[in-house]
Amino acid sequence: MANLTPNPSFSVTIRLQTPNQPGMLASIAQAIATSGGNLGEIELLTQTRKLSVRNISVDAASQEHATQIVEAVKALSAVDVLEVCDRTLALHQGGKITVQSKHPLKRQADLAMAYTPGVGRICQAIAAQPEKVYQLTIKSNTVAIVTDGSAVLGLGNLGPAAALPVMEGKAMLFREFAGIDAFPLCLATQDTAAIVAAVKNIAPVFGGVNLEDISAPRCFEIEAQLQRELEIPIFHDDQHGTAIVVLAALINALKLVKKSLSQVRVVINGAGAAGVAIARLLRKSGVEKIWMCDSQGILSDQRPDLSAAKREFAQPQSGSLADALQGADVFLGVSAPGVLTPEMVYTMASDPIVFAMANPIPEIQPELVQDKVAVMATGRSDYPNQINNVLAFPGIFRGALDCRAAAITTSMHLEAAAAIAALISSSDLDREQIVPSVFDPRVVTAVAGAVQQAARHAGIARC
Amino acid sequence: MANLTPNPSFSVTIRLQTPNQPGMLASIAQAIATSGGNLGEIELLTQTRKLSVRNISVDAASQEHATQIVEAVKALSAVDVLEVCDRTLALHQGGKITVQSKHPLKRQADLAMAYTPGVGRICQAIAAQPEKVYQLTIKSNTVAIVTDGSAVLGLGNLGPAAALPVMEGKAMLFREFAGIDAFPLCLATQDTAAIVAAVKNIAPVFGGVNLEDISAPRCFEIEAQLQRELEIPIFHDDQHGTAIVVLAALINALKLVKKSLSQVRVVINGAGAAGVAIARLLRKSGVEKIWMCDSQGILSDQRPDLSAAKREFAQPQSGSLADALQGADVFLGVSAPGVLTPEMVYTMASDPIVFAMANPIPEIQPELVQDKVAVMATGRSDYPNQINNVLAFPGIFRGALDCRAAAITTSMHLEAAAAIAALISSSDLDREQIVPSVFDPRVVTAVAGAVQQAARHAGIARC
Repeated sequence: MANLTPNPSFSVTIRLQTPNQPGMLASIAQAIATSGGNLGEIELLTQTRKLSVRNISVDAASQEHATQIVEAVKALSAVDVLEVCDRTLALHQGGKITVQSKHPLKRQADLAMAYTPGVGRICQAIAAQPEKVYQLTIKSNTVAIVTDGSAVLGLGNLGPAAALPVMEGKAMLFREFAGIDAFPLCLATQDTAAIVAAVKNIAPVFGGVNLEDISAPRCFEIEAQLQRELEIPIFHDDQHGTAIVVLAALINALKLVKKSLSQVRVVINGAGAAGVAIARLLRKSGVEKIWMCDSQGILSDQRPDLSAAKREFAQPQSGSLADALQGADVFLGVSAPGVLTPEMVYTMASDPIVFAMANPIPEIQPELVQDKVAVMATGRSDYPNQINNVLAFPGIFRGALDCRAAAITTSMHLEAAAAIAALISSSDLDREQIVPSVFDPRVVTAVAGAVQQAARHAGIARC
Repeated sequence: MANLTPNPSFSVTIRLQTPNQPGMLASIAQAIATSGGNLGEIELLTQTRKLSVRNISVDAASQEHATQIVEAVKALSAVDVLEVCDRTLALHQGGKITVQSKHPLKRQADLAMAYTPGVGRICQAIAAQPEKVYQLTIKSNTVAIVTDGSAVLGLGNLGPAAALPVMEGKAMLFREFAGIDAFPLCLATQDTAAIVAAVKNIAPVFGGVNLEDISAPRCFEIEAQLQRELEIPIFHDDQHGTAIVVLAALINALKLVKKSLSQVRVVINGAGAAGVAIARLLRKSGVEKIWMCDSQGILSDQRPDLSAAKREFAQPQSGSLADALQGADVFLGVSAPGVLTPEMVYTMASDPIVFAMANPIPEIQPELVQDKVAVMATGRSDYPNQINNVLAFPGIFRGALDCRAAAITTSMHLEAAAAIAALISSSDLDREQIVPSVFDPRVVTAVAGAVQQAARHAGIARC
């Protein structure tokens, strides 16, 4: 907890009543500051000659911290705390997405056109010409977000119901960043064959499938099978979304230290879905020296415990993460909190690049090596250089849907990464700005454009 | 075609330019009337001293008829037809529903609460207390509309893609009539076990499942298995929605002819999903004499070809539909166009009740026996007494979701039918008004209330 900075995910809104006197708000702000809370919006609800009622939003570092802050405010003798609202909990009440009709149904004529009997003509048109499903239904703009809940964020195997809030959040991102209609499907099975069967069976409605939070190594097999057997794009975001944004960030970070992809030695810590996908994409982009580590150390030829995916990157060398990092140019962490020590960073080559992307707590707190690294990136929004999949997947699917791509290929991944990197001009490029903001409106169009071009180039665009 | 009246499902909007002179619109209206078109909205787009441009909407009886009407307008020498738009086709372009975010994502704080890291707390809360999925996700208000495309409207086995326009329409109805978030899932399998597996696997996201347009007899087995194996309500609308509304209408029709359910002999023509469900519900409601017919005639004990569902209603008698109708009080048709002749109606008991519900063309054109029946109902909106499932399913699911019913039971069906029937007061009851309008806002609340009460009575309400 001491390691975490206050952030909106633990924010509360405190409704409080005070005498309408000078200095009241100052004393409250002081109490919050002393408790380590970060003051956000302050809203005046009512004010009489005698009393003020305000909503005050405060970011905390944890739920316990939020409670401490509220207690500190309650301890002020002149303040009445009327209500405390957990802002994150409130936002999720009743779910975060909704299915709406595009047209009102107010009269018989509306029903007769949208539903029976009029809809029968539309059904017959599609039955006669199957490709018309793309014009006459939601398919062309609709993506399934499919999970089995086996690897929910960094929290582990929470199952399908507990995964739903993440999938709804993802659907919001698809809508808000790319105008895509995405719907969450959390499957009540973690069996590879059953997942493949389920996705194939629900495929007719969807223009694409975003696989999410499915654990390795099953995710590799599921994605590969679905790509072979379906003619719509399949994209496992935990793998490829992460890999694309990491590559984009690495391209720009290497410009700052004047090293090339083919030259550097990269250590990837974490050999799950993201780690393997990053390694594969870096290899395709020209990185020749990739050492991967998992919790047992370097993926070495000599280890008998490696899965097929891990064996792809097995090295003659063996040893610990610390051993791997000696002389390495780049550390890419998709692993666990605090596994990278400052001492390990000091043994890296000159101008080390460190992407500590474990969420929410990075492999190393950036403050610890602030002056010792050339470039630091994390998965967090409260530090510079956030490696966030939101930079990739909305544009990837926007582009794939717009040209009706039959698949999302490695060349699309590479082009998307290049497009994201290119949005940072050489004059803007800085050790604290290697990727664009997720709110930069150019991102989705740049990525979508790159994906479409790659699809046309490969001959897999269908419109 | 001669049998069909013009209706909005075949409507066109004709954009035309005329000299701005008296009598132009009259001549156009006359040409449309002469061709048998039904004039709808007329919109003036621009008018100068010399010219007028208008959009004119016209209902036709078929696509060929619409073309004839347009040709008749084009033949007018002073009229320039600028554009012709098929209104139904236009309404379906790009699909009819959309998935929207309930909250904007404009700032990092929004992302941190709706998505990572904040969403992790919500996932953990559900993992710790699984029933919280109803408070913290979309589940409590979300229904899956599941089909395999095997019995799309009356059009047959068109497959999943061609069924999607119907399922989207259904989702619109759920939204507009009951405020429910419903999402269509059209399955790429028609295998009973595979459908059951698919629905079980997608169930975690949904508060209920509406099965739709799945052919008999598989629909019976699929629904029964899912009801046994899932703890959320399963409802095959083609069966039970139809049966509920038929029972409601029959209750009121019998009041008009002063006969009772236990007294009448009912002939049901059509022994598919709807016919079987109607028969089952009528039996539960006290009807003792039910003769069912399929395309081979009366379901007789002596027939070796009957499915299990049909055998439930097998009779000692055998014969044709005409044989069955001699002396019968009620004809319920869920079969095929034109199979009921006036001569058959003449052989029924006094004050015959005829529900000719084949869609879009009824078992008998109402005009043919207008004065010979006590009550006539159809599935069409352009005749009185439309037997429309929209009277039932929105309220059924609204009620089931609101009390978190574990299932939708026969007693709920019966209560829902009684509630719909009760909306027609004795003073309003008339041979042309035995059911409320689908746009009557009391319907959904009356049905939802009845369903909730039945659930609480049966001890299957969970909140």
